[in-house]
Amino acid sequence: MRGKVYIVGAGPGDHKLITLKAVEAIKSADVVLYDRLVSKGIISMIPKSAEKVYVGRDVGDDYKHQDYTNDLMLKFAKTKNVVRLKGGDPFIFGRGGEEAEFLKSHKIKYEIIPGITSGIGSAEYSGIPLTHRDYASSVVFVTGHEDAKKKKEYVKWKRLAKSVDTIVIMMGLSRLEKICKELVAGGLDKKTPVAVIQNGTTPQHRMVKGDLSNISQKVIQARIRAPSIIIIGKVVNLSEIIGWRK
Amino acid sequence: MRGKVYIVGAGPGDHKLITLKAVEAIKSADVVLYDRLVSKGIISMIPKSAEKVYVGRDVGDDYKHQDYTNDLMLKFAKTKNVVRLKGGDPFIFGRGGEEAEFLKSHKIKYEIIPGITSGIGSAEYSGIPLTHRDYASSVVFVTGHEDAKKKKEYVKWKRLAKSVDTIVIMMGLSRLEKICKELVAGGLDKKTPVAVIQNGTTPQHRMVKGDLSNISQKVIQARIRAPSIIIIGKVVNLSEIIGWRK
Repeated sequence: MRGKVYIVGAGPGDHKLITLKAVEAIKSADVVLYDRLVSKGIISMIPKSAEKVYVGRDVGDDYKHQDYTNDLMLKFAKTKNVVRLKGGDPFIFGRGGEEAEFLKSHKIKYEIIPGITSGIGSAEYSGIPLTHRDYASSVVFVTGHEDAKKKKEYVKWKRLAKSVDTIVIMMGLSRLEKICKELVAGGLDKKTPVAVIQNGTTPQHRMVKGDLSNISQKVIQARIRAPSIIIIGKVVNLSEIIGWRK
Repeated sequence: MRGKVYIVGAGPGDHKLITLKAVEAIKSADVVLYDRLVSKGIISMIPKSAEKVYVGRDVGDDYKHQDYTNDLMLKFAKTKNVVRLKGGDPFIFGRGGEEAEFLKSHKIKYEIIPGITSGIGSAEYSGIPLTHRDYASSVVFVTGHEDAKKKKEYVKWKRLAKSVDTIVIMMGLSRLEKICKELVAGGLDKKTPVAVIQNGTTPQHRMVKGDLSNISQKVIQARIRAPSIIIIGKVVNLSEIIGWRK
């Protein structure tokens, strides 16, 4: 028998924010290859009969690691059903597309199961509506951590500044100061509100707010660490009104 | 006893793409106020003991309808636990923010439970990775149907054209031709690939592909109807390689 790979989004942190379909895939898995940002509550859903393999990786790791994960998927999928479990959503900065390409090239069957991306989950648990009739007709999700292989910077921060209403930056904490400066250079007001949310939707969820001119300092003072989501735009102000968690 | 309102995202269509937390809220609801785009599979999860109230509304309906829904939430929440069930995600073009503001102003307690937004679900079931290391460092979600009350058009299509890598348009089908022209005027190549996905993630999921110069004609020929998601960018081409559903 040939196996199949389920590329599964585990959601943003709160383990109850996983989908029924993802849980079904986990419950019937022979092997689960899981990432660093998958919460313990979800790991505990893996049946005892299944093999658990940690394939987590820190930001900045090189390509070898992806090759290692790909080789494992291939090895197991020859005879077993494999769940490839990722934090957030597989197709929103989750490399799900790249892994699907790899599987396809090796004629391995697969399915993709979406997850709540951490950008959306973190915003919602903070009372920040990423779109709003009065304040935001568009929201962009953008990586703050670009591929080291790319020769030039690909994200056009200056252009982005005046093109969209809400900007959600993932993996951008270490470059926050530079990004804020670029956005101001691109025409955004220095007083544009910014929220930085660490460990969004988990019991360790915390948020620091400021504006483009002072958020990078505030984040240092508050010792905010990765994984964090950065949200920029007028909608950030709404968290004071409609924030619903203590 | 005073009740509480759960503003819940039901996900994109496939009823298994709802979260455990959303199901928990539905199971313990006294009343469920549900929208047009919530799938039957999810409606069937509502316990028999709960009152079901349809508050669906077609695009273009006026503001009175939102007032009607708000009044119902308020009436029921005085004594009961209410689930306000929405298609997709409450904060991605779901008016969840507006409803939370209303509840807050009436001192009603509430929680927000995220859902898989139809833009992400539809892309994933079509084999289109909205971000990808080689092709897309950013993805924008934007409404094609702007608030009729707004005096001028708020979405800056021409600017958007060259600022982000992947563009996902929700509720834009009726204005597709105009939007494509604006994007070309903004500098996007006429041959930029476009996918239009109707009823994404449901058994009626179907996709038409083309480019900015011909998609509006193809959509008419194929009789594509709302609800549909429009995806624009290089990543659309990947669906030919990694599309995984028949």
